[in-house]
Amino acid sequence: MKKWFPVVSGITAGFLAATVFFADFNVGSKTVAVDPAKKSNAEKVYVPFGEKDEYYLFASGGHSGQMFIYGVPSMRHIRTVPVFSQDSATGYGWDEHTKELMGGYTWGDLHHPAFSETNGDYDGKWMFATDVGNSRAAVMGLDSFTVRDIISVPNTSGPHCAAFVTENTEYIFLPTRFAVPLGSEYASLDEYSEKYRGVMSAVSFDETTEKLGVAWQVALPPWSYDLSDAGKGMSKDWAVLTTYNTEEATTNLEINASQADRDYIVLFNWKELEKMVADGQFDEVNGQKIIFPEKHKGSIYLIPVAKSPHGVDVTPDGKRFIASGKLAPAMTVFSFEKAFAAIGNKDFSGERNGIPVLNYESVMEREVNPENALGPLHTQFDDKGMAYTTMFISSEVVKWDPNTGETLDRVAVQYSPGHSVAAEGDTMSPDGKYLVALNKIAKDSYLSVGPSHPESMQLIDISGKMEVIQSAPVNPEPHYAQMIKADKIKTFTVYPKDENRPNSVWKQEDTRIERIGDEVHVYGIAMRSKFIFDAKSQRPDVIEVNEGDNVVLHLTNIDLDQDITHGFAINMHDINIEVQPGQTNTLKFKADKAGTYPLYCTNFCSALHQEMTGYLLVKPKQ
Amino acid sequence: MKKWFPVVSGITAGFLAATVFFADFNVGSKTVAVDPAKKSNAEKVYVPFGEKDEYYLFASGGHSGQMFIYGVPSMRHIRTVPVFSQDSATGYGWDEHTKELMGGYTWGDLHHPAFSETNGDYDGKWMFATDVGNSRAAVMGLDSFTVRDIISVPNTSGPHCAAFVTENTEYIFLPTRFAVPLGSEYASLDEYSEKYRGVMSAVSFDETTEKLGVAWQVALPPWSYDLSDAGKGMSKDWAVLTTYNTEEATTNLEINASQADRDYIVLFNWKELEKMVADGQFDEVNGQKIIFPEKHKGSIYLIPVAKSPHGVDVTPDGKRFIASGKLAPAMTVFSFEKAFAAIGNKDFSGERNGIPVLNYESVMEREVNPENALGPLHTQFDDKGMAYTTMFISSEVVKWDPNTGETLDRVAVQYSPGHSVAAEGDTMSPDGKYLVALNKIAKDSYLSVGPSHPESMQLIDISGKMEVIQSAPVNPEPHYAQMIKADKIKTFTVYPKDENRPNSVWKQEDTRIERIGDEVHVYGIAMRSKFIFDAKSQRPDVIEVNEGDNVVLHLTNIDLDQDITHGFAINMHDINIEVQPGQTNTLKFKADKAGTYPLYCTNFCSALHQEMTGYLLVKPKQ
Repeated sequence: MKKWFPVVSGITAGFLAATVFFADFNVGSKTVAVDPAKKSNAEKVYVPFGEKDEYYLFASGGHSGQMFIYGVPSMRHIRTVPVFSQDSATGYGWDEHTKELMGGYTWGDLHHPAFSETNGDYDGKWMFATDVGNSRAAVMGLDSFTVRDIISVPNTSGPHCAAFVTENTEYIFLPTRFAVPLGSEYASLDEYSEKYRGVMSAVSFDETTEKLGVAWQVALPPWSYDLSDAGKGMSKDWAVLTTYNTEEATTNLEINASQADRDYIVLFNWKELEKMVADGQFDEVNGQKIIFPEKHKGSIYLIPVAKSPHGVDVTPDGKRFIASGKLAPAMTVFSFEKAFAAIGNKDFSGERNGIPVLNYESVMEREVNPENALGPLHTQFDDKGMAYTTMFISSEVVKWDPNTGETLDRVAVQYSPGHSVAAEGDTMSPDGKYLVALNKIAKDSYLSVGPSHPESMQLIDISGKMEVIQSAPVNPEPHYAQMIKADKIKTFTVYPKDENRPNSVWKQEDTRIERIGDEVHVYGIAMRSKFIFDAKSQRPDVIEVNEGDNVVLHLTNIDLDQDITHGFAINMHDINIEVQPGQTNTLKFKADKAGTYPLYCTNFCSALHQEMTGYLLVKPKQ
Repeated sequence: MKKWFPVVSGITAGFLAATVFFADFNVGSKTVAVDPAKKSNAEKVYVPFGEKDEYYLFASGGHSGQMFIYGVPSMRHIRTVPVFSQDSATGYGWDEHTKELMGGYTWGDLHHPAFSETNGDYDGKWMFATDVGNSRAAVMGLDSFTVRDIISVPNTSGPHCAAFVTENTEYIFLPTRFAVPLGSEYASLDEYSEKYRGVMSAVSFDETTEKLGVAWQVALPPWSYDLSDAGKGMSKDWAVLTTYNTEEATTNLEINASQADRDYIVLFNWKELEKMVADGQFDEVNGQKIIFPEKHKGSIYLIPVAKSPHGVDVTPDGKRFIASGKLAPAMTVFSFEKAFAAIGNKDFSGERNGIPVLNYESVMEREVNPENALGPLHTQFDDKGMAYTTMFISSEVVKWDPNTGETLDRVAVQYSPGHSVAAEGDTMSPDGKYLVALNKIAKDSYLSVGPSHPESMQLIDISGKMEVIQSAPVNPEPHYAQMIKADKIKTFTVYPKDENRPNSVWKQEDTRIERIGDEVHVYGIAMRSKFIFDAKSQRPDVIEVNEGDNVVLHLTNIDLDQDITHGFAINMHDINIEVQPGQTNTLKFKADKAGTYPLYCTNFCSALHQEMTGYLLVKPKQ
């Protein structure tokens, strides 16, 4: 025990245990003084109309299933972009295209977002994210802030330890938080160690087809994989993951997964694994190429680390990785160079589950224990290579020097930060300047909205002495975020007028309603300020069908002006889709209720928006 | 024509038409100078940590189906509260209680929010709202910011012209935007004038049972009803609605509903209507008591008004009402006193659809036409009784004196404001100080998020010369908002420990899993940092069932600490519920997939949140 807690002597073990296990986050009893942001900070965060924020912040929306876009430094919530959950505000999940993307699910648990990278720098093209709830991965195109693909990841359960992206977006790695039998087959928990696995998937992304795919998988031991990072520069072919529950407990993990003094960092060389797969060193299970480390040896190593680490973060220069032991008050700095040497020298202390364990002493550079700092979770970096670690239990961010371990600065945050994100923080050249603490507990920070609280994001000026300069409430629940220079993202705002697009209609005279058996195909137009489903009809904005018909509506927004969105809803039909300027969307529904139902544009589009209506008439069966 | 456009002489009719019908909101061509908010405004909107906003802003979320809560003056988005649409962030729509509230719908189009009132003042107890998409009404309790009841409103379609609340919340009136045959029966649009109706519902709310109910309805003519307001003080028994499409057009409303120079204000006395119902002067249709004005005479009157008015707003003193003719550049000030006299004198110019039309000249006080101000939509008031009207087409807010018609001030907003909301603006005693313009078009106001833009809310300091001091992006799409003094709302944050609550479990030893046939009832506990479904089991955090079983999980969060929420998700089951501190929720699902599925807490709850997991094991059928 002592080894891992060298500076906790002033704190009784009882207090530590109580804090960790039973912490009630009681604000009143905090001893760390709150440093209130001062009025003088107002100008630092104020972005007047006519100017724009300097950075985009992409915060994962957790069990909201969405991505939250904020501007920095204003910390204004610009937009919620739907990814894994339905979003009637944008019709996401109602039109046929997005319904298909969602694959039958209505929500997701969006965890760690990751920008695509070129040469270890965010390139502003794509954003990846995972769904811990329903084991999926998604990619969003940053030209339109829309999801392009979502895949289910077979053999896995809860890709929490993701997404992390390699230096040139060769792979997005998806290790999992939960172990399951391959294919989620039924197997008793008595057979946990034999039959369960924590599978890591190497997902690739094809920029041309805009499709994600599982390239290969690794059947890691039945442990929980928490967070991860890809190497950079000298370590670019490598990646690191944290583990917990290496005890392989099957119940009451609160106690049983916190028994061993040490868990492991998994260190692997993905280039070599890729080669192993090319050489046929894998088994095929449920259609996937899976490497079993105990059988297909090499390229994967374990490094002991302070118990139940949360984050592991590679320094911008790619030379070190820092693990934060959430149940130990210690950050541990490891050296890639030392690790490579240990691997070369087979400097192993043994093996676990068929994987060699590197000698801790041979790989570790230093243990860092800022005084009274408790619950280190995740580390970010500034432009000088200095480290910023969130302390969940002592509710603060600690700045320290990875070269010396020296504590340089600390600032209280309110309360219990999980992750933090620095400007361009996961690149090879962080910007410094700003850090945002993603706090798990808001308590009474904002006007109360009852029992279900907002989370809290706090903007910290890190250009000098750290100071919290803005506190922003946020919907549940950001688990991580990335911050990118605004000028790296190039969007379009109007879809091109593509007359060859299937089912699109651009001229009023081409609108039509066609019947094929009991299918009614509507080729319609939305424009300021009317719907035209059949220009030749007495009432061009009316769709009349028979009870029981299947209706397929193709709707094109022919207003090619920025910000002129049209919606389409049918009263009492639980339907709302949207068409952005120049976009065509398809809606299918069964007209199973005879009656008269107004239809209307749901997105305010012009002074005559209220007049943009029509009717769905469903003739009763005779 | 001349009569309605007295000051538009400088604007050609062609320009006006072009602006109204084909406006492309092209920013570049705007002649109104943008007055950029200045750095000096930063301090006016900055609320440092440790302080709180002065007002809550409740903005309707439109087709998002939700309510957005902002703080003023910071304009920070504090929380999205689910009302009509599913929200996995809070489990809304997944647990049995909220699923039942949603009544089989997954989304709604949340329009005009309205606080409950006592003596014409917001009392901070309840918030009402309507669903234009699926014809419903909802009430939210402001002690917890949770929905307490949602009702479907029979015989109606799209309660857009709502909700407005009488002086002591006797009724919430729900007139509709769309006309349909009663009961949404099928009827040809050729029979529109005979068979269609625009029904207004008088909805009452029982504070004790927390239930909404339709007290009675009025079968108004088949027109569109747009906005409304209840009287105050001397006019407290009365209410006013705007109408459009009094032409009774059945197609292409953009043109056909804009033919007549005049539409109407509907003025009615709800106390008298209530008495008529008590006296049996109604017909019963589809289980509702409906007054047909052409048959059950009295208490309802029409007043001609400039064509296609949007808003109608009662002045804080209750003496006047102001209608904004969206297709005429005029606000018209009417006098309740004059209207009452005209009614007393039967000073009618005729009748429409069996309803007497009051003489315009007898009721109108003045027409107000600020120079070049186009597209007046909605009026709010300050503490001195001055009026603030949003101008959709000329993108500005105009301050003017209802007593004289004099223009006092104007400020450009970006762009195309629909509604605006003043601090305590719909009460008998507005606060002045702040006005928020709810702008329909953001264009390039914020960092681009692609084709689908945020809307924009701009905070205007109205304490002196009007000045835009903050611009806040907002998710689609606020249609109206109300702003209440923060200290009027008293929330609780922890549900009381009620040991008699059905299905709740508070002690570990009371947890249990009971089988009744193929139903498995789980009485479980969520607590930091574990689930306990059956404390006596070898693995208390595991639920094992047979394929095909119906599982009923009752989960109680026994952590009675503020902001300690637990979630509950099952991997690959599209399920997420939440339990707030002290709350019990019930989840039902069919275990129809044999296999091994991790379950876990989705809401970060403690340092050992990651360990708060278990398994659902579904044994395959033999």
